[in-house]
Amino acid sequence: MSNRSFAILGTGALGGFYGAKLQKAGKDVHFLLNSDYDYVSKHGLVIESKDGDFTLPQVNAYNDVEKMPQCDVVVIALKTTQNHLLPQMLPSVVRDDGVVLVLQNGLAVEEEVAKIVGNVNIIGGLCFLCSNKVAAGHIRHLDYGQITLGGYANDYESTGVTHYMQQIANDFASAGISMELAKDLLLARWKKLVWNIPYNGLSVILDARTDELMSYVHTRQLVEQLMHEVALGSLSCGRIIPDSFIQTMLNYTINMKPYRTSMKIDYDERRPLEVEAIFGNPLRKAHLLGVNLPQISCIYQQLKFLDEIRRVEVRDLNS
Amino acid sequence: MSNRSFAILGTGALGGFYGAKLQKAGKDVHFLLNSDYDYVSKHGLVIESKDGDFTLPQVNAYNDVEKMPQCDVVVIALKTTQNHLLPQMLPSVVRDDGVVLVLQNGLAVEEEVAKIVGNVNIIGGLCFLCSNKVAAGHIRHLDYGQITLGGYANDYESTGVTHYMQQIANDFASAGISMELAKDLLLARWKKLVWNIPYNGLSVILDARTDELMSYVHTRQLVEQLMHEVALGSLSCGRIIPDSFIQTMLNYTINMKPYRTSMKIDYDERRPLEVEAIFGNPLRKAHLLGVNLPQISCIYQQLKFLDEIRRVEVRDLNS
Repeated sequence: MSNRSFAILGTGALGGFYGAKLQKAGKDVHFLLNSDYDYVSKHGLVIESKDGDFTLPQVNAYNDVEKMPQCDVVVIALKTTQNHLLPQMLPSVVRDDGVVLVLQNGLAVEEEVAKIVGNVNIIGGLCFLCSNKVAAGHIRHLDYGQITLGGYANDYESTGVTHYMQQIANDFASAGISMELAKDLLLARWKKLVWNIPYNGLSVILDARTDELMSYVHTRQLVEQLMHEVALGSLSCGRIIPDSFIQTMLNYTINMKPYRTSMKIDYDERRPLEVEAIFGNPLRKAHLLGVNLPQISCIYQQLKFLDEIRRVEVRDLNS
Repeated sequence: MSNRSFAILGTGALGGFYGAKLQKAGKDVHFLLNSDYDYVSKHGLVIESKDGDFTLPQVNAYNDVEKMPQCDVVVIALKTTQNHLLPQMLPSVVRDDGVVLVLQNGLAVEEEVAKIVGNVNIIGGLCFLCSNKVAAGHIRHLDYGQITLGGYANDYESTGVTHYMQQIANDFASAGISMELAKDLLLARWKKLVWNIPYNGLSVILDARTDELMSYVHTRQLVEQLMHEVALGSLSCGRIIPDSFIQTMLNYTINMKPYRTSMKIDYDERRPLEVEAIFGNPLRKAHLLGVNLPQISCIYQQLKFLDEIRRVEVRDLNS
């Protein structure tokens, strides 16, 4: 058992769940909070989970990153729409020989982190987690929970499985979290986009669940075309996604329970959409390598419009 | 002055307006109606117009095309979503040496008409008309009204300005309708699609007026990209639309009053959308000539989904 310390930046449905699991397994965990700080510093965290409910009456809660101790592992569990805060947050909380673990969607966030703290190890994690924050300090874990880890090096060159990845995987596995190690983070991220780009995008634009998108022929075709464009983008980075993977994702989704995507939930809850991480960054990466992805670009521009309209509505509601 | 007779197939906002203008100018006009037949056969038509209101207390109204006399000019003023009715309607009402005037949006309707009544002259008309049916037999003409005519020949080969076009233009002009004669119907139809495809499509998908689409940078860019794809489609048919035309359409729309497109009005009123005529037919025509239009295809598939969902809703409401 390691005695590595963990900083959780963003104690929401994702960060709160994984952080609580780590603390329950005996790790030294420090939680950064924003609106829920007062409540959680007094009452701790409650996790309702399909794997068993538990309560942590006392957690190390902070409302200011400057007050946090330097930690061995800094887990970025914010939405990517908050990433403009990272340059302020990261330098004070991460140790020189520490690890930053990016548990976020989309592409290229590791590059941003490397620009801020180039002297640390950066690991990307792709979470397959279905959980919601139902109240302050109260998280409901519905399904899944697995994390795929991949090491980040300059410009996403493949790192293979590193010592640091092994350590983190062991820490999380000891907390009951299923872990997978990927040799190539960029390929793993593009593969996750094969699902995220069509379903997150179309669910918001067309106000639809996954089962609705799959039960009409035109959207089913559009989903598949978008998946092939993601594979083209991946190929522009030298990463091959086979057609069989696309067929697997389509069949997987057809057989899934009707599902409201995370971006659709964000949209319905009037939260900012992770459009840049999931759509803008992949488009720009492929474009730099000379590859245009016209249908993903169409979806991106539609989402930007809807997101900006909603920002204006929220601002008007609050003024 | 000619004494040509006119059959108006579809006495709605468009057919009712033009037919009433023709009758007021002394033409022999016969109106086909559906739900408004009883009312209009008793009370005639009322036209409120920016060019002057008028009433026609008595019109030749029919609820069955078989009861109509054979006419010199048969005006197709149905929505294209009703075109499955044309094979039944056209043969009995059009004279052998008569003219069919297709006053519809989109592409390829003339080809369908030629398959039904190949022995008549076919003329396409592009209407720039802003009018609504506000009640049975009551039409409100808000703005514009110009028609561009173009002759149809095999596979849309350019006809130049024909004798028949001149005759019809004279008839409509004598009724106070501004007419323009196009030498190349297919070019004229593709040019109208430069506006119709982006604005009709995005207004429905993004629930937006023209001014909203133009005031956000991402939709403004998407509109322009879609216009360039329409020009590519046109080029696949050997018709060149210059960039300057696209810039003119963009500037024209920026300077327009905030406008709800006709497809958006259809969608809001839960009527079927003219997706095939405006999107499907141009896509198929370009595709047959080896040209893919991926962003128009994306919009088409989204609209098909929204239209089909709405058909299901309407069916459930009525059941």
